[in-house]
Formats: sequence, C-alpha cells, structure tokens
Amino acid sequence: MAPKRVGRTGGRDARRALRAAPLADHVRPIRAGMEGGRYRPLSDAGMAQIHAAALDALEQIGLSQAPPSGVEILTRAGAVQGDDGRIRFPRALVEDMLAVAARDITLHGREAKHDLHLSGQRVHFGTAGAAVHIVDLETDTYRDSTAQDLYNAARITHHLDNVHFFQRAMVCRDVTDNYDMDVNTLYACLAGTTKHVGTSFSEPAHVAGCMDLIHTVAGGEAAWRARPFVSNSNCFVVPPMKFAEESCTTMEMLVRAGMPVLLLSAGQAGATAPAPIALAIVQAVAECLAGVVYVNAIRPGHPAIFGTWPFVSDLRTGAMSGGSAEQALLTAGCAQMHRFYNLPGGAAAGISDSKLPDMQAGWEQGITNVLAGLSGLNMVYESVGMHASLLGFCLESLVLGDDILGQVMRCVRGIDVTPDSTSIEAMKEVCLGGPGHYLGSSQTLDLMQTEYVYPVIGNRMSPKEWNEAGKPKLLDMAIRRKNDILARAGCQIAPDIDRAIRSRFNIHFT
Amino acid sequence: MAPKRVGRTGGRDARRALRAAPLADHVRPIRAGMEGGRYRPLSDAGMAQIHAAALDALEQIGLSQAPPSGVEILTRAGAVQGDDGRIRFPRALVEDMLAVAARDITLHGREAKHDLHLSGQRVHFGTAGAAVHIVDLETDTYRDSTAQDLYNAARITHHLDNVHFFQRAMVCRDVTDNYDMDVNTLYACLAGTTKHVGTSFSEPAHVAGCMDLIHTVAGGEAAWRARPFVSNSNCFVVPPMKFAEESCTTMEMLVRAGMPVLLLSAGQAGATAPAPIALAIVQAVAECLAGVVYVNAIRPGHPAIFGTWPFVSDLRTGAMSGGSAEQALLTAGCAQMHRFYNLPGGAAAGISDSKLPDMQAGWEQGITNVLAGLSGLNMVYESVGMHASLLGFCLESLVLGDDILGQVMRCVRGIDVTPDSTSIEAMKEVCLGGPGHYLGSSQTLDLMQTEYVYPVIGNRMSPKEWNEAGKPKLLDMAIRRKNDILARAGCQIAPDIDRAIRSRFNIHFT
Repeated sequence: MAPKRVGRTGGRDARRALRAAPLADHVRPIRAGMEGGRYRPLSDAGMAQIHAAALDALEQIGLSQAPPSGVEILTRAGAVQGDDGRIRFPRALVEDMLAVAARDITLHGREAKHDLHLSGQRVHFGTAGAAVHIVDLETDTYRDSTAQDLYNAARITHHLDNVHFFQRAMVCRDVTDNYDMDVNTLYACLAGTTKHVGTSFSEPAHVAGCMDLIHTVAGGEAAWRARPFVSNSNCFVVPPMKFAEESCTTMEMLVRAGMPVLLLSAGQAGATAPAPIALAIVQAVAECLAGVVYVNAIRPGHPAIFGTWPFVSDLRTGAMSGGSAEQALLTAGCAQMHRFYNLPGGAAAGISDSKLPDMQAGWEQGITNVLAGLSGLNMVYESVGMHASLLGFCLESLVLGDDILGQVMRCVRGIDVTPDSTSIEAMKEVCLGGPGHYLGSSQTLDLMQTEYVYPVIGNRMSPKEWNEAGKPKLLDMAIRRKNDILARAGCQIAPDIDRAIRSRFNIHFT
Repeated sequence: MAPKRVGRTGGRDARRALRAAPLADHVRPIRAGMEGGRYRPLSDAGMAQIHAAALDALEQIGLSQAPPSGVEILTRAGAVQGDDGRIRFPRALVEDMLAVAARDITLHGREAKHDLHLSGQRVHFGTAGAAVHIVDLETDTYRDSTAQDLYNAARITHHLDNVHFFQRAMVCRDVTDNYDMDVNTLYACLAGTTKHVGTSFSEPAHVAGCMDLIHTVAGGEAAWRARPFVSNSNCFVVPPMKFAEESCTTMEMLVRAGMPVLLLSAGQAGATAPAPIALAIVQAVAECLAGVVYVNAIRPGHPAIFGTWPFVSDLRTGAMSGGSAEQALLTAGCAQMHRFYNLPGGAAAGISDSKLPDMQAGWEQGITNVLAGLSGLNMVYESVGMHASLLGFCLESLVLGDDILGQVMRCVRGIDVTPDSTSIEAMKEVCLGGPGHYLGSSQTLDLMQTEYVYPVIGNRMSPKEWNEAGKPKLLDMAIRRKNDILARAGCQIAPDIDRAIRSRFNIHFT
C-alpha cells in the first residue's frame, strides 16, 4: 500500500501548499464592495412616507443661512427665497436634480486596487470623525491627539484588509495654526496610506494651498482630475434645516476643483434633529436632498455622497450616544433611503460610547457595524477606533476593529445557496457507508479559505490551550499587532515628493 | 410671570414623576416576544431549495439508530425501515406531520407574566448549554462549575429584564451521581427563577423521579399539565443523520408526561455537519423534520420546538467557533426556515469564543445575537454568559449580556414609521420661529422612556466625567451588579415545598 500512501501524502502536501498561498482576490471569502441589503428596516410604504415628508419639509420649511453665492446658485436653479430668507425647494426641482445626480461613482485610491465603486448596495468600511483625544491604553489616559497620531492611524489602516478607506479621524491638536492644521490633516492621511482619503477643510481660504499639495502628490492637476483620490467631508448644513455658510463656500470651490464631496448632515436626534427615529431620517434626507440640488446646480453629475449621518442623543442627558441601538437603526434606515434614491450614500456606524476597547465597545461596534453592512450602506464612516461617543480615537481599537469588520463583511456576504451548496451528495457520501463525519472531506477543505473568515487577534483557543499559552489578553495582542504594523509601515509618498512638500509646507509629523 | 413659572415647574415636576415611575408593559420600549424578521438571509427560492434538499435527504438517506420503540412508532406512522436499518421518510409523511404539528405554542413561566408565546417571528432570548467551567473573573480562572453556580445563574437571570427564560447552562460537576445531577440541575433552575426553565435529562430512568419533583413544585400533576413550565432539551439526533437512542426513549416518556420538547439537532459544520452553510442548514432541517414526525406520531400536536442548532467549526483546527460570522449566518438562516414551516423554532446565538468578557466577547455576542433577533428567531438559546465556545459560563458576562440583549431587542423593535413619527409639524415648530433645537420639546420628552433604551452597566460618560468618576471599569461594575443581585435574590420556591423537596432529594446547593 506504499504507493497509495505516498500519493495521499503528496495530495495533502499539495493542498497544504495551496492553502498557504495568498488567495486570489476573486476567491477570498470577503473583500471591499460586497453587496448588502438583506436587512431592510423600512418597508416600501415606510420609505415612500419618509420621502414624501422630506419633500414637504423642503417645500414648506426650506433651509436658512445660505451664503450669497449659494442663494444665487440655488435660486437660479429654481429654488425660491422667501421673505424670511429661507430657501425653499419645489418638488419638481428636487426631482430634476435627482435625475441628473451622479450614480455608480468611484472613489479612487492612489493604487487602483483600493478604488471604491459606490453602486447598488456595495459596502465599504472606513474611519472618520474629529476626535480630540487619543486613548493611551498603556495608561488608560485620554490625551490630546496630534498630527503624528493621525499619521500612525493612516499607516495602520494601510495594512488592515477590512478597513477600506481612511478619512480623517482625529484633530491634530498640536497644530495651532488653522491653515497648517488643514495641511497636516490632509498630508498625514496621504503619507500614511494609498487608500482613498477623506478630509475636511475648515475654511475656503485653505482650499488653494491644499489643492496645490494634492496636485503635487498626484503629479499634476490633470492626473488628479483623472483619478481624484481625496474626498471632502462637507458639513454643509447645521441641522435643523440651516446651511453652514463657510462649508457651503468651501464646497462650491471643491466641486470646481474636481473633488468628490460628502454632503454631510450630522444632526443629533433629540437635540438638533427630531427624537422619533423616522422623523430624524426625514430631516437628514431633506437636508441631503438640498445638498444634491446645490451640487448639481453647480456642476450636474458631480460625484457627491448622500451623507445622512443623524446621530443619537441619550435623551436623559442630551449627550451623544453613538453606540446605541437607536443609532444602529438610524444608520440602517438611512442606508435604505440611499437605495430608494439609488444614490451613493454614507452614514456613521461602529462608534463606541465606552472609553476603552472593552466588552461594551465590542457589542456597540459589532451591532452598529453589522446593521450598517447588512443594510447595504455604501460608505460606513467612523466604523473603527472611535470611543467616548466620538471624542477619543484608539489605535489598538483600530486594529481590533479590523477583526470586527472581517466578521461583519462575512455576514454581508451571506449564505450562498446554489445547487452545489445544497446538493445532498456530500451527505450521502458521509452517511451511507462513509466515515460518518465531514472532517477532512474535500468539500470541507475546499471551503476552508474561500467561505470561512478567521480573526487575526480574536482568540479561539480552548481553555486548556489558553492556560498553557499564559492566558494571553486581547488588548496585549492588539498592542503587539499595532506595534508590529507601525514598525514596518513606511511613508507612502515618494521621497522626492515628500521632500518637496515638507520644504513648502509646515509638516508636524515624521 | 411668577404664575407661569410655577406652572412650568409644576409641569416639569409632573413629567419627572411620571418618568420615574415604572412603565406599564405595553409602553416599555422593549419586551419579550417582539417581532423580528426584517433580516432575511435567504431568498424565497433559497428556502425552497433547502426544503427540497431536506426532503430528499429524509427520503434517500434517512436516519439510523432509532431505538426499537422509535422504529415501531415511526414505521407505524408510515416511515420505512430499509435493509440497512435506516428509517426513511416519504415526503407525504413529512407533509402530513407538518400539517398537524403544534403551532403558536406557549412555554409557560411559573408566573404568567413570564409566559413565552412562540408564534410568527416573536423573539425571546435565554440561556442554555452544558458548560463544564465557570469563569472566575477575580482570578481569570476556569474552574469546575457546580450546582451552586447554576442556582446563582438562575437567580441572577430572574432579575434580568432581557433574559426571558433560563435553560440549564452548565453542568453540576460537583454532583457525581447521574440521577442526583439531573435532580440538582432541574431544581437549581426552578429554585432560582419563575421564568420558563429548560433542562436536559440524561437517562430515561431519571424521568419518573424528576417528574415527581416537578409535580411537587407545580402542586400536582394536573396543575403541571395545565401550565407546563419546564421544557426538555432533547439531543434526539447525533448528526449526521443518526438517532440518539437514549435521548429518543427519554423524549417518548416526556411527550407522554406533557412536557414540551426541544428537538435539538446540534451538528457542527465541517465536522458532524457539512461545511457549506446552506448544506449544514439542509441537514439540520432534515433531522428536525424527522423529530417532528417522531413527536407527532406519538401525540399529534404535542408542543415541540424545531431546534436546528448547527454549530460552526474553525475549519483550520476542527475546533468549535460559536462566535463566528458563519455561526451568525447559520442561526439566522435556520430561523428563516422555521418561518418557512411556520413552526416554533430555536437555535443558538450569543456564544463567545473568547475566554473572558472582553471586546472580542462583546462583538461576537452582539453580532450573533442581533442577527438572530432580526431574523425573527423564536427562541435564542445560549445567548448570554457563554465563553470559550460553550466550555465556560461567566456570571458577570450574564449580567453584561442583559445590556447587549436590551440593545438587540431595541433593534428588533425597529423603526416605527407612522403618520405621527413622520409628521413635519414638529420640525416646523422648531425651525420656523421656534428654538432651533429639539431639546426639551414635548415630543422628545414623550419618547425618552418609550422609544429609547438605556444600558444598565454600559457607560456613556464623557471622558471628563469618566475621569472624575475614577475611570470606572466595565468588569468592576459587572461584578458589583452581580453581587447586588445575588444579595437580594431569594429562593423562588415556597419554604414548605422547598423543605419537602430537600427531604426527599439530595440537593447540593443552598
């Protein structure tokens, strides 16, 4: 029986080698842009009702505080300014602009493999936010976040498979000059990763300089316009139903500069948005529809993300609660409205209210992210690293969040039901005269890497193995992975360009 | 303006008093039995395909190892025993038994307020399992679980709003005699809580004595049969496609004794069940359909829970992984098949692979439980306290899990879309000449306790408040809540009955 045995061993070795090799992208169990949508918190009638209420709000309430340039753009398009100064939007205007709005847009990475194709119910996860602290796990301390922290977060994200884009997640509080802060925010992101970058300019006056920096990184304006790899998060409204003048002016400039914009409406249910979840969605949808009109009146078909980001208040205190069930529902409901309009959309999930990456952080991030993914949200912002209801960012939590998002994306992929995956032949082989179990069957081995996802830090040891391994703690393993990545994650800008930029801009990180 | 001010204060005081009072059950934001079903991992075609494959498996593969009594019951009903000894089930037999199977069943509590009505997509969460360790958080140690631990878990569960039933979660390893172990398992549950109890008898010979104990607690057999408050978890199959002889014999006795049974098929995908998720569901469905035929052939319409509990292997090692995304999908897919048959169903979710209640435990429990709830699973077993892939139970985690389940049930409740909740009148009041925010509006105050859910242990403080509070740790707060509950949670059996039982049975806990 020697030849047979050799044959078997050879086959097993071959399989083992195959399994050790990195998987081609198309057979990996999870990847950016998988389709969600199996969770639908709203009925069709519910969506129609929310849409109708949003149109009513635009027609009857409208938005105040548009900047003069915005008043001109919007009224020329067909909006009406009332005696009270508010801009109101006739239903036909909204419908016309929805008809020309960009669909199926691409948010580019600096490497094409990181491009994000926003269409249908394709799901992508990434960072975002404006945390003012970084959580130091060695001392359980909240300290001011710096440009160096942001650069480190970008470098770590570059090496995490399940974090698909990097939007500015914290404020560089060591940079006191406002222009330098916008420059450092932008460059810390770009230097850390070639994934798509999101930033947020604080003043119109900073756009020219920042675009100059971007053109330098791109290798010229034409290259930038061909593959814009930065989007801008525009808080163009201050809910309820008010335009934010400076942000609107900045947005006008960025649309003309070829930058995709995130039309961000960040109300807070029970404070700056209505307390009923459905009505908070109505208000966010109305505000973002006003943004769609605005952008498309400047440049029809300009890439814009429908950014309904309503947050939640703890109604007892008025404080924000990003990790609540109500937040999960708000975000998922918004995702469904994005599909209603068939517009590329984004919202917030994955925020923890806990101050540390503990069990609470796990359930809050897990529940809110999986509902966002299953609802088919194109861009899930703030999905990793965020603590204390957005006030703190934690690098170890970012690394742990990669495991959460892996699990979430596996849920998004769902259950493959095919003639093959339901054929009872495999059962017959095992049960009728076979070994009586599926261990080591070819079907089991085939699916090991193509259907099942494994955590990188998450621990699946038995209690005995865990004991023998010295009871490894999750946070210690996260600290180790963070340090390992930072030790090898270099600057993603060519040295000559980096030198050129550092000679012309005041860069605060190394 | 004094009168007006008094008036306002008076109104505010009245509202405050109203809010401090416990809410009537029908206006509480969450309660047992809310309807899930907004998440549908399977398409209609997918469900039909799984159903067809399960019928094929029953007809072509069948099940081996039925006990002689079972062979008689099943063949008399119309099943066919082949020359290979396997019992095969003609499609018409399965369909006939599905037609008479019990639907809309009630699992009683000893107090009516704890009754569980299993119909449609109504969701209930509880414990279950056979952990052999208890996790001691003070020393991070896994030690053998005891009858006292089980009693403590039952007492804690009695005081947790979001844990709706208590099924035996761990093995009383200090009780070495098998009969005494069944007795202590049963009585530790009953003495700790008046919620519905699940247990699992290990041998047919133990049924008579245990039923005697149950009748004593009920106040006689008639009272027991009127409101059976214990169900039995019957591992009546040893997957793949084999009956478990002793469990089947026990089940026959319990059906005659009037006890609802959980038809439990606990395969493990990649080991005792097929590795493809869809085919693992096919096998579990086939096995449970065999159970439906079995039970209804004994007593048509006897209450039985369709217990498709396929678990997941980490295919790299063969070890179980209860916290994985694959587990979440398996369980949610099974829940949808329960709805396909319109049968009361149960499955497992909320298991953590982590050894401790850390961030991993949070995301694993959060994701698997929320998918189970949203899929409309009637009975979610093992949903709290379970660690190390079912090997360890943790009392602090049980207490923390109550917060998770509160959040999950809020997600299950979903978004109320009504003319009221989408009326833009509240927006008009705030935006057009109003205060410009929704803080303190009557709508906000009204919803504070009826629409929003707050964690008991979960911490929503700002970093500043958290610092000033001495950086409270989540696990310390869980230990404190556990101790608080245990200090006040008494025995739920009347003293005379307790004395009678302790005089006749060998009870190991105090």
